[in-house]
Amino acid sequence: MSVLIVGSVALDDIETPVAKHPDLLGGSASYSAVSASYFSPVNFVGIVGEDFSSAHLDFFRSRNIDLEGLQIVPGKTFRWSGKYHTDMNSRETLSVNLNVFETFSPELPPSYRNAKIVLLANISPELQNHVLDQTTAPRFVIADTMDLWINIAKEELLRLLRRVNMLILNDGEARQLTGESNLIRAGQAIQKLGPAYVALKKGEHGCLLFGPNDFFVCPAYPLADLHDPTGAGDTFAGGVAGYLASQDEGAEISFEQLRQAVAYGSVLASFNVEEFSLERLKTLEFSEVKDRLRSLKAMSSFDVA
Amino acid sequence: MSVLIVGSVALDDIETPVAKHPDLLGGSASYSAVSASYFSPVNFVGIVGEDFSSAHLDFFRSRNIDLEGLQIVPGKTFRWSGKYHTDMNSRETLSVNLNVFETFSPELPPSYRNAKIVLLANISPELQNHVLDQTTAPRFVIADTMDLWINIAKEELLRLLRRVNMLILNDGEARQLTGESNLIRAGQAIQKLGPAYVALKKGEHGCLLFGPNDFFVCPAYPLADLHDPTGAGDTFAGGVAGYLASQDEGAEISFEQLRQAVAYGSVLASFNVEEFSLERLKTLEFSEVKDRLRSLKAMSSFDVA
Repeated sequence: MSVLIVGSVALDDIETPVAKHPDLLGGSASYSAVSASYFSPVNFVGIVGEDFSSAHLDFFRSRNIDLEGLQIVPGKTFRWSGKYHTDMNSRETLSVNLNVFETFSPELPPSYRNAKIVLLANISPELQNHVLDQTTAPRFVIADTMDLWINIAKEELLRLLRRVNMLILNDGEARQLTGESNLIRAGQAIQKLGPAYVALKKGEHGCLLFGPNDFFVCPAYPLADLHDPTGAGDTFAGGVAGYLASQDEGAEISFEQLRQAVAYGSVLASFNVEEFSLERLKTLEFSEVKDRLRSLKAMSSFDVA
Repeated sequence: MSVLIVGSVALDDIETPVAKHPDLLGGSASYSAVSASYFSPVNFVGIVGEDFSSAHLDFFRSRNIDLEGLQIVPGKTFRWSGKYHTDMNSRETLSVNLNVFETFSPELPPSYRNAKIVLLANISPELQNHVLDQTTAPRFVIADTMDLWINIAKEELLRLLRRVNMLILNDGEARQLTGESNLIRAGQAIQKLGPAYVALKKGEHGCLLFGPNDFFVCPAYPLADLHDPTGAGDTFAGGVAGYLASQDEGAEISFEQLRQAVAYGSVLASFNVEEFSLERLKTLEFSEVKDRLRSLKAMSSFDVA
């Protein structure tokens, strides 16, 4: 079954301590959709300008990503420029040009509206709510967000949280949203705001998944070399959503399936940061994903004797 | 088989955002020995003054901790006073009075010298080296350390590292010792300094265990309420050493045993922070430790499908 993904499509200029690359394919929907495509066909909703390279469109199509919901309009594609510092853990936004994204109103083609699994990748909660309004019978809705929306659109975000099944956010954002410094309490506090499930990302330290009656500590695959952390969270979210869509058979999604989904998302993100932009995912085979997942399981297992 | 543990014994005054307690039993050897005693008898080397309460001595004895190596001398016991800030992740030392510890020279009673498993709990690397000089045939030596020694006794610490099988330290200390911000590279760099095994503690994010050919990501047991983080690292180290001593049968220690040891150490530390000082360990049953270890395994497991 297809997964519906809506978010941003961008052209990024990225600088790290070791390299600098302009005009990279980026945006939350791009990373999420390509990651999800390892598991399911994707129905894609976003906007780009006329400057958006047809090579990027061909790449999306090659990944079984349906582009009927992608608006291609006069003007320039959303551009973001950022710089990572020595430890790759902190980054600075150098410039943002919304361009065609400024007036973006996501519209679902009729064939997308009955989506069962929906990923509202990181865009404003207003647009996320607008997309949700157009769906007819979603079974599991995942929303990703960021510090910016907690700062400038908290009410709209809180309205969204009452409508989604899972929120994905990182540790800093969870603390910011709840005022709780302890991450266990922060995750539980977010559940009280609406979502039955919370995936709390901790970067190199893995992810905590909170469910109504269950809890999953997902380890991160150890990486000695990160080349570009951009899109790691989007890749994670896409992997989670794509895996769930591949498993959906009309029954309620089990916590076991969510564990798997989170572990797959985590491994896909670990590959994505090995190269700039989506370069690593252009050559990544599913067999490599599965091997790394097996390896992660082996290195995080222990017996009780 | 007994485990040999040397370190500090202290009386602590501790303040957290919610409570303040004076005259608590503390010190690296105290926490480590009580934790190790869940698995093995302990031979204990340390120093206290005449003010040290006989109730503390009775507690140690009740835990099968041999005190022949504990020097009780005229003067006052080492005192430490510290304050934790809101998130319990940062602390401030308010005062340190070395007292009898100032002239401490650890001497092993003859019956301790053939120890096979040795834990050099956190004291100066000079004293740790001095203890090691007195052992005759140690099979597995674990050293714990702290930022202070990396700052003021780095050469002596580097000499120690060439003589031990495992170093235990936290993420900040690993970065400080190696200059590597990436923790995977930091752990590997420490292995090049001597120890075949490195246990890199990340507090609430668990622990990474580096071996010559293996790697273990140990999750942390999730805690919504911490009451006193003091001694968590010492408790961890003691659990690791005690477990290894309980398993030692003359053969080389396997990585599977080390995984178990680290997981047990991590669970013991999670209990210890639930109350001030060693209070939680005074009532903690081994069956509770095992239950929590099973629970940790369940909440960190996933299938590969």
